[in-house]
Amino acid sequence: MDFVTATYRLRCSADEAPRLAQHIALEQTVEVPEELIDSPELRDAVVGRVRSVTPCADRAETFLAVIDYPADLAGAHASQLWNLLYGNISLKRHVRLVDLVLPATLHAQYRGPRFGIAGVRKLLGVEGRPLLATALKPRGSSPERLAELAAAFAAGGGDFVKDDHNLVDPDFETFRRRVELCQSAVETAHVGSDRSTLYAPNLSVPLADLDRAAEFLVRRGVRGALIAPMLLGFETVQRLTATYPLVWMAHPTFSGCYFHDPDHGVDPAILLGQWFRLIGCDATIFPNHGGRFTFTAAECADIANAARRPDGDVAPCWPAPAGGMSFERLPEMAAAYGADAMFLIGGALLGASTNLQISTQRFAEQIAACFPQSRQVAPMANDHLSACEMPLPQSAAALEHLAFQAGFRWDGRSAVAYKPNGSLPFKDVARTELIGRHGEQTAFDVRYFEIAPGGYSSLEKHAHTHVVIGLRGTGMLDSRGEQRTIRPFDIGYVPPLAVHQLHNRGDEPFGFLCIVDHNRDRPQAP
Amino acid sequence: MDFVTATYRLRCSADEAPRLAQHIALEQTVEVPEELIDSPELRDAVVGRVRSVTPCADRAETFLAVIDYPADLAGAHASQLWNLLYGNISLKRHVRLVDLVLPATLHAQYRGPRFGIAGVRKLLGVEGRPLLATALKPRGSSPERLAELAAAFAAGGGDFVKDDHNLVDPDFETFRRRVELCQSAVETAHVGSDRSTLYAPNLSVPLADLDRAAEFLVRRGVRGALIAPMLLGFETVQRLTATYPLVWMAHPTFSGCYFHDPDHGVDPAILLGQWFRLIGCDATIFPNHGGRFTFTAAECADIANAARRPDGDVAPCWPAPAGGMSFERLPEMAAAYGADAMFLIGGALLGASTNLQISTQRFAEQIAACFPQSRQVAPMANDHLSACEMPLPQSAAALEHLAFQAGFRWDGRSAVAYKPNGSLPFKDVARTELIGRHGEQTAFDVRYFEIAPGGYSSLEKHAHTHVVIGLRGTGMLDSRGEQRTIRPFDIGYVPPLAVHQLHNRGDEPFGFLCIVDHNRDRPQAP
Repeated sequence: MDFVTATYRLRCSADEAPRLAQHIALEQTVEVPEELIDSPELRDAVVGRVRSVTPCADRAETFLAVIDYPADLAGAHASQLWNLLYGNISLKRHVRLVDLVLPATLHAQYRGPRFGIAGVRKLLGVEGRPLLATALKPRGSSPERLAELAAAFAAGGGDFVKDDHNLVDPDFETFRRRVELCQSAVETAHVGSDRSTLYAPNLSVPLADLDRAAEFLVRRGVRGALIAPMLLGFETVQRLTATYPLVWMAHPTFSGCYFHDPDHGVDPAILLGQWFRLIGCDATIFPNHGGRFTFTAAECADIANAARRPDGDVAPCWPAPAGGMSFERLPEMAAAYGADAMFLIGGALLGASTNLQISTQRFAEQIAACFPQSRQVAPMANDHLSACEMPLPQSAAALEHLAFQAGFRWDGRSAVAYKPNGSLPFKDVARTELIGRHGEQTAFDVRYFEIAPGGYSSLEKHAHTHVVIGLRGTGMLDSRGEQRTIRPFDIGYVPPLAVHQLHNRGDEPFGFLCIVDHNRDRPQAP
Repeated sequence: MDFVTATYRLRCSADEAPRLAQHIALEQTVEVPEELIDSPELRDAVVGRVRSVTPCADRAETFLAVIDYPADLAGAHASQLWNLLYGNISLKRHVRLVDLVLPATLHAQYRGPRFGIAGVRKLLGVEGRPLLATALKPRGSSPERLAELAAAFAAGGGDFVKDDHNLVDPDFETFRRRVELCQSAVETAHVGSDRSTLYAPNLSVPLADLDRAAEFLVRRGVRGALIAPMLLGFETVQRLTATYPLVWMAHPTFSGCYFHDPDHGVDPAILLGQWFRLIGCDATIFPNHGGRFTFTAAECADIANAARRPDGDVAPCWPAPAGGMSFERLPEMAAAYGADAMFLIGGALLGASTNLQISTQRFAEQIAACFPQSRQVAPMANDHLSACEMPLPQSAAALEHLAFQAGFRWDGRSAVAYKPNGSLPFKDVARTELIGRHGEQTAFDVRYFEIAPGGYSSLEKHAHTHVVIGLRGTGMLDSRGEQRTIRPFDIGYVPPLAVHQLHNRGDEPFGFLCIVDHNRDRPQAP
C-alpha cells in the first residue's frame, strides 16, 4: 500500500500530543470516533496511521506528528489531496502542516513546471545570475503608459515583466489590446539585440474566458502568464499549466491566512514552494522578508528551497521574492537566494528615478556585479521554441482538410493495424486516426475502422462511450445480447461499461467511424 | 461611481490606525506608495477611499476602518473581487474583514441559491421546523452499506442525507454506482409515503469530470450535491450552481485558516454565510459551537444570519451547523437557530443506537417536539420538477441505434431549422441533433446539418473547434481566406477562434456531420 506522509506540528501538552495526533488521523479520513469503526479492514485501509509523535527540539510545548494516509484517499485530483491533508483540521487550532511527502504513484500525477529554471534561462539566454523582474502598475494607468513602462524596463536590461495582479480589464478586447501593446513593447525593445524580456500578463479573466485568453497569449507569442492559485482553485491552475505552453507565475494573493499563525496553517514552503511547483508553476512569488509583509528570512529560504530542490523528475521552479526590495538590499538578496531566483522589484524600481530605463540598468548592473560569472547567450528564438518545445502542435492552429480518396483513405492519414492486446483478442481490424491525435483541440477523437470479412473487434467494456457511424459495407454491433446491424450512415451508441463487439459477417469490408472522448479509460475484458 | 464597501477590524495603536487604513486602501488597489501616484484622476478612480476609522467599543486597541473601493476594480468575476477585498493583505497581520457591502451593479452578478430555504422546503414538503440531516460515512464502507444507512435514515424520517466529504471514488463508474444505490435507497424508502428525503452526493471528482458528474446527478433525479468552494475555486462553484438544478451544499473544508485568529482573516459570516450564498449554495455547513471545532456561539449566529437575512433578490440559504451535536443539545440548537436551519448530525446519530432508523426517528421526533407548529405537506414530485425546472433530458443508459433512412433522416431524431440569431445571419440550414443531446454520456455532440442550394451558415468564430465530415452533395468551407471543398467523406477541421462559414453553391443539398465539444462557448460575430 502507498502512503501520503504528512507531518504536523502540534502545540499542546505532552499528554495531549498522541491523542491529538490520533484524532487528526481519524478526522481527516473516516471522520467518526474510533469506537464506531467496526471492521479491521476499514481500520487498515482507510484510517490514517500515526507513525510517530516527537517533541520539537526548538519549541516548547510543540510536537511533530507524522501520519501516513493511504494514498488512494487522495483520489485522482488535487482538491481531494488537500481535503485529506488539511480539510477539516483547518477549522481546528494549533495544527500546522510542516512536511509533505507524496508516494511515487501520486507524485506522477503532478508534472510540475514545463519550463522551470532551465527552460526560462534558455528563453532569456541568461546564465549564472538571478533574473530582474518588475510589475506593470498602477492599475488605472492607460495601456499606452503600461507599454511605455514595459519598453523602458526591457531597454534597461530587465528580464521579466509581469502585470500587477490588480490589472484587470473590463472585457476581453481591452485585455487583448493591453497585452498586445505591452508584448509589442518588449519585442520592439530588443529588435537587433541578443537579449530578450519575457512578459507575463495577469490572467485574471472570468472563468469562461480563461482558455480563450491563454490561447490568445500563446498565439500572440507572449511567453508568460500570472495566475492566483488560491482564487482559481488548484485543479484549474493544474489544467491551465498542463495545457498552455507559457511560463506560469503564481501570485500568493489570498493565501496569507494559511501562514500568519506559526502554530496553525500550512508552511509557506509547502504551499507556495513545493505545491505551486507540483501543479506546474514555473515561478512562485512570495513576500520577501524585511519588506512590508510578515515572512521571516528562514521562511523565505524554505520557500526557495522547496521550489528548487530535487523532486523526482519535476523541474525546479523560480523563487520570486517580492515586496519592499531596494537597490541597497541587492547584495544581501544575492547572497541569500543565489543565482536561481527572480527578484521582483516594483515600487523601488519605479521610485528609484524618473527614468525607468536608467534605474533598471542600475539594478541590472548591480545584480551582474554580484554574479561576476554570469553571462548572456543568445535567447532561444520564439519560432524555434514553437517547433521544439511547445507541444501545442502546428496543425492545431490551422484549418485542416482531409480529402477522401478511393478505398476509404484520407489524405495525410494512414491506416494502422489495430493494436494487439493479449487479453482482448480481435481479428482483421485496421484503424485510421482522423481527428484528435494530430494536434487538434477537440474533446473527442474521430477514427475510421475497417473490419475485413470474417473479422471482429475485441469483446470489451469501458467507462467511456462509443459512437459508431457506418460508412461502407454491413456490420453487426453486439452488446449484452442485443444485436444491431450497422449499414452506411446508421448510428450506434454504446453506453458506459456495456460489453460490446463489432463483427463483419458479410463478404465486403465493413467500415465505420468511431467517435470517442479524447480523455478516456482503457478497455477492460468483460 | 459605485463602490464596494469593506470594513476591516485593525489591531493597532490609535496612532497607527489611520495610517494602516490608508495603507490597505493603497495596497489593495494601486499597490504603490502614495507618493508615486502622480495623477489626480488615478487617485479618484482607482485608489480605495478610507471613509472612517473608529475605535471598536468592545475590544481594546482595535479599530474599524471602512474603505470604499471603486466597484470596477472588482472586475466581472469573483476571483478579482476577493483579490481586491483580501488579496495581498491576507499576507499581513491584524487585518480582519468584518463587513462587506456590494453595490447593486456588482450584486446583480451573483444570483444566489436556485432553491434556497423555500425551494428545499417545497422539495421536502416540510414546513415550520429545521431539517434533520446526516452524512454517509465512513469512507471505506461498501456502497451497499452506505445505501443501507441512507435507507435507514430516510425511513426514520431524516430529511437530507449527504455523502461525507471524504467519500471519493477511484473512477467515474464507481461514483455512478454508489450514487445510484444511495439515491435508489432514499427513493425506495418513501414509496407510497407523503415524504421525501434529499440526497447530496460528494461532487469531489477530477475537474474534467465535474460536468459529467453533475449532469449524471440531474438526469438520475438526484436532488443535491456537496462541494468544497475553498478547494474548487469560487468561480467554478458559481458556474456549477448556475448550470445544474441541484440543491448545492457547501462544505467548509480547507477554509479554517481564514477564521481561527480573531485579529486576522475574514469573518466566517462573510465567507461561509454571505459569500457562499451569493455564489449559489443552497446550504452552508459550518462547525457548530460546543463541538470539536472552534467557532463561538456568536460566530455561529452570525453565519446563520448572513445566510438567511434579506439580501436583495438573493434567496436565503440554509445554515447547516455540524459537528459534535447530540440528542440532548437539540432544544438548545432549536432555540439558537430557529426553524430555518439544517441540523447536520453525523457521529451522534450513528452512535446513538445500533439501529439508525430508530435513532433518526428519535431525533426527528425531538425536533418536531421543539416546533409544535411544524407540518408535513406533499413534497413536490420529481417528475413535476423535471418537466418544469430541470432542463436536462433523460439518460441514455441503453444501447442506441439510429437507423439511417432515405432523405438523410435518422430514426428517433428529427431535423430542426437552425436557430435564428439576429447578429449572426444564415440561410436555409437545418440541423439534426444525432448524439450528445439525448442523454448520451459523451464529451462531444454529433449533429447532421443540411444546407439547401444557395444557403450558408453564419459567419462566426468560437473557442471550440469544428470537425466537419461531408455526407451528401458538395459544399465549401471558408475560413480566413482559405476555401476547401467538402465532398462526401472529406473531413474539415476548424481551429479555435478561426472565423468560418459553410456555403452550398451547388444545386443539390449539402449535408455533413459536424462534431463539436459538448461543453462549448457561444459563437461570436467575427
